[in-house]
Amino acid sequence: MITLYHHPLCPHSRFVRLLLGEYTIEPTLIEENVFERRREFLMLDPSGQTPVLVEHQTIVAPGANVIAEYLDETRGQSLGRHRLLPQDPIARIEVRRLADWFGQKFFSEVTDWLVTEKIYKRYIPRERGGGGAPDMELVRAARANIRTHLRYIGYLAGSRKWLAGDLLSHADLAAAAQLSCIDFLGDVPWDENETAKLWYARVKSRPSFRPLLADRLPGLAPSPIYADLDF
Amino acid sequence: MITLYHHPLCPHSRFVRLLLGEYTIEPTLIEENVFERRREFLMLDPSGQTPVLVEHQTIVAPGANVIAEYLDETRGQSLGRHRLLPQDPIARIEVRRLADWFGQKFFSEVTDWLVTEKIYKRYIPRERGGGGAPDMELVRAARANIRTHLRYIGYLAGSRKWLAGDLLSHADLAAAAQLSCIDFLGDVPWDENETAKLWYARVKSRPSFRPLLADRLPGLAPSPIYADLDF
Repeated sequence: MITLYHHPLCPHSRFVRLLLGEYTIEPTLIEENVFERRREFLMLDPSGQTPVLVEHQTIVAPGANVIAEYLDETRGQSLGRHRLLPQDPIARIEVRRLADWFGQKFFSEVTDWLVTEKIYKRYIPRERGGGGAPDMELVRAARANIRTHLRYIGYLAGSRKWLAGDLLSHADLAAAAQLSCIDFLGDVPWDENETAKLWYARVKSRPSFRPLLADRLPGLAPSPIYADLDF
Repeated sequence: MITLYHHPLCPHSRFVRLLLGEYTIEPTLIEENVFERRREFLMLDPSGQTPVLVEHQTIVAPGANVIAEYLDETRGQSLGRHRLLPQDPIARIEVRRLADWFGQKFFSEVTDWLVTEKIYKRYIPRERGGGGAPDMELVRAARANIRTHLRYIGYLAGSRKWLAGDLLSHADLAAAAQLSCIDFLGDVPWDENETAKLWYARVKSRPSFRPLLADRLPGLAPSPIYADLDF
């Protein structure tokens, strides 16, 4: 039995939900507002960030990177040649490089700014650092940065079948998890790169993606194309 | 043959140098000033960050996390029971959790601010974002944060033999790599936590640490205790 502490617009949580979907595991989802700094949650993991995965109520794996490696080590081989982290150490370099690229670089240059400014500020009380209008300078910077990343995705998807090679991997799911948050906000300029858009449509059409497309936040409608497979 | 693109005060590069030392590999070191954005270096890895490890002139592994996993996969078993990433998937969770804690959380809350404000600003030309006096607000914030981290290290080292358990692991080397940069600057308040200090003395005394203690930067002397094993 797997429990996942997550937040609907936390891209790292989304990456783990996609992974679990690919392993056809249905986790018990617990929505965690990390800014509340809930004592029980901090006892699970002192870093106080989502996602945290708990298995058999005793194994606690915090952070998308740690969870992805744990799931691969305990279930990877069950996927046979469709293993999401390839067997070969050299092929693994490229998958992990890109998973880190999207989980860290894309996150800090795009997702973090857009989600913090446009969403979290709205839900986090002023006394916990939230409130106030979005900082439009950060929003503009993120919107400029995403164009570079979209070109890079287009370049990769144009020269390979999937982002890291011939097979779907952590790289595709990590990238799509970040993009899906921005797409919820309607801030992905899909028209600028047809190859990137076609790659995203392929990931978005996977059964593992369906639960993400059903995500809703109270008082906040996703962009009209968010759940549309033919966007 | 292994080549490592690094910088003496890049903590992630130091982590990899410690790893290589534990594997008794002597890399060819190439000092890279990432702010120069050298074309040949960007061709190796578009993220343009140190460290980047190159093996047999063809295998390119960028980023400390990717490199640590690659070295474990290709050499880990040669260390027998002293493998730096344990065999068991559950034990690996704790090692990876702490390696990420120091490589990401400690780095962003302590090392990044101190090294950027006190060192890089001095070497990076103004037109590339450097120059100017250190922002003392950031320096003070980092100095406050390090005390919390030092307590956490003391707590871990007080309840276990090494940070993640009975054996030296990626966790110890990742933590010591970050601390060693701060120690170079003389900004670790060692007197505040004797247990953390004793743990660091053990890591610092390892042969793998020796090359780091010989690091010097032009025009910048390390703190007097930096290379002292009985600090």
